[in-house]
Amino acid sequence: MKHISIIGTGNVAFHLSQAILKLDQWKLYQVYGRKPSATQEFKNDLALNDLQTVNDLNALGEVDIILCCISDNAIQEVISKLKLQTTLIAHTSGATALQNTAVNNAVLYPLQSFSKWKELNYQNIPFCIEADSERNLKLIKSLASHISTEVYHINSSQRLQLHLAAVFVNNFTNYMVKIGEDLCQQNNIDSSILQPLIIETFDKLKRMPATEAQTGPAKRQDHQSIEAHFNLLKNTNYQSLYQNISQHILNDYGKKL
Amino acid sequence: MKHISIIGTGNVAFHLSQAILKLDQWKLYQVYGRKPSATQEFKNDLALNDLQTVNDLNALGEVDIILCCISDNAIQEVISKLKLQTTLIAHTSGATALQNTAVNNAVLYPLQSFSKWKELNYQNIPFCIEADSERNLKLIKSLASHISTEVYHINSSQRLQLHLAAVFVNNFTNYMVKIGEDLCQQNNIDSSILQPLIIETFDKLKRMPATEAQTGPAKRQDHQSIEAHFNLLKNTNYQSLYQNISQHILNDYGKKL
Repeated sequence: MKHISIIGTGNVAFHLSQAILKLDQWKLYQVYGRKPSATQEFKNDLALNDLQTVNDLNALGEVDIILCCISDNAIQEVISKLKLQTTLIAHTSGATALQNTAVNNAVLYPLQSFSKWKELNYQNIPFCIEADSERNLKLIKSLASHISTEVYHINSSQRLQLHLAAVFVNNFTNYMVKIGEDLCQQNNIDSSILQPLIIETFDKLKRMPATEAQTGPAKRQDHQSIEAHFNLLKNTNYQSLYQNISQHILNDYGKKL
Repeated sequence: MKHISIIGTGNVAFHLSQAILKLDQWKLYQVYGRKPSATQEFKNDLALNDLQTVNDLNALGEVDIILCCISDNAIQEVISKLKLQTTLIAHTSGATALQNTAVNNAVLYPLQSFSKWKELNYQNIPFCIEADSERNLKLIKSLASHISTEVYHINSSQRLQLHLAAVFVNNFTNYMVKIGEDLCQQNNIDSSILQPLIIETFDKLKRMPATEAQTGPAKRQDHQSIEAHFNLLKNTNYQSLYQNISQHILNDYGKKL
């Protein structure tokens, strides 16, 4: 049985704790949060009354792995404060390089969007791992492989690109849907009318690359419809966005004609 | 039993024909295509050897409804050529106003993205209807209600906004995913690693409005990550897009703080 502690009490910490609690081979040992109220809430949310929580980094003991699930700009400082000699310290950030401030360093980046109460199948989440030695890579891989079947050895530079790709795939797609919903609401149309189209859009993406699935006026080089849409948006903030994205699609697919 | 003819042999004509063929109350009577080769292929694709096809608009007989499933810029011309006195002429375009060139006019706009061989559950597709009289509205509503449970009475101006919303929800979301896939490929990462994130992104949108589901650096007003991503994109065409979309999200959510 190997032991894990977690630094952080946010969404990633919550979901990784849940995933670890399902494992026979790994045991959740300590959880660190800055505030007692946060660690207490974390225990409550996980329904783990006897989980050992600490609010002082020095109270974290040597274990096999400590997962540092905190915001990017705090990672370096927190890891540099840990005075552990045998514990592998892994952060979970997509946008942060492998640190070299602990004795043993690794990365365990789950490529997924975590919302606290949204259930996930952890087996399908891609885990991107990296470590400062073969031994540490093997250890972090062992943990990742118990949680998920999708484990990728990805270096810091690739991980940063993946994180950026995730912004497009998740945050920006979501924002496009938000605009669609806004347009409905502004015109007294119940935005739930868009649901079947949203579902179909993403169902198609399970079956083919997005470059093949692309449709619409810009893909068809239909300048008349683009102009009509542009004029329709003249009183909103979305006009420049419509023009910019359409222009990119026109350029991309125009080249291919 | 009521009779329908269809003008057009593209994706919308194909799918609406399939939907109509499932109905007991409506019969597909004639299909018009400009070229004999297109109507022959259409018959083959639907596996309907005995479907009556015509290649001359004047050969279309009086029926209950003719559905005009052709490109937006051909609708007006084609409808004005039809010399039918009792048939309700309905086009299926989101971006085209109700025409007044036939004796009886309607619109039957399916709010969905149609790919020829992608199976769809027609029962769930929202059909937006409009007509030039109460009698014609009732007739087009009767057809729409047999195909789908989701029928909306939407005027031309609302329909145009819906069509525009669909561009954001379908074409632009798809393009965001395309960029994510490109970033993977450019960095020697198998883009299938993005699949679970794509699925989760849209699964969340089934449960909550996009405005609540929004996450990411711009939502968090995290200018440091935005700048890091921006610099990462400096050698690509996507930089302006990243900046533009992030700025919109920053503005939208900044206001709400």
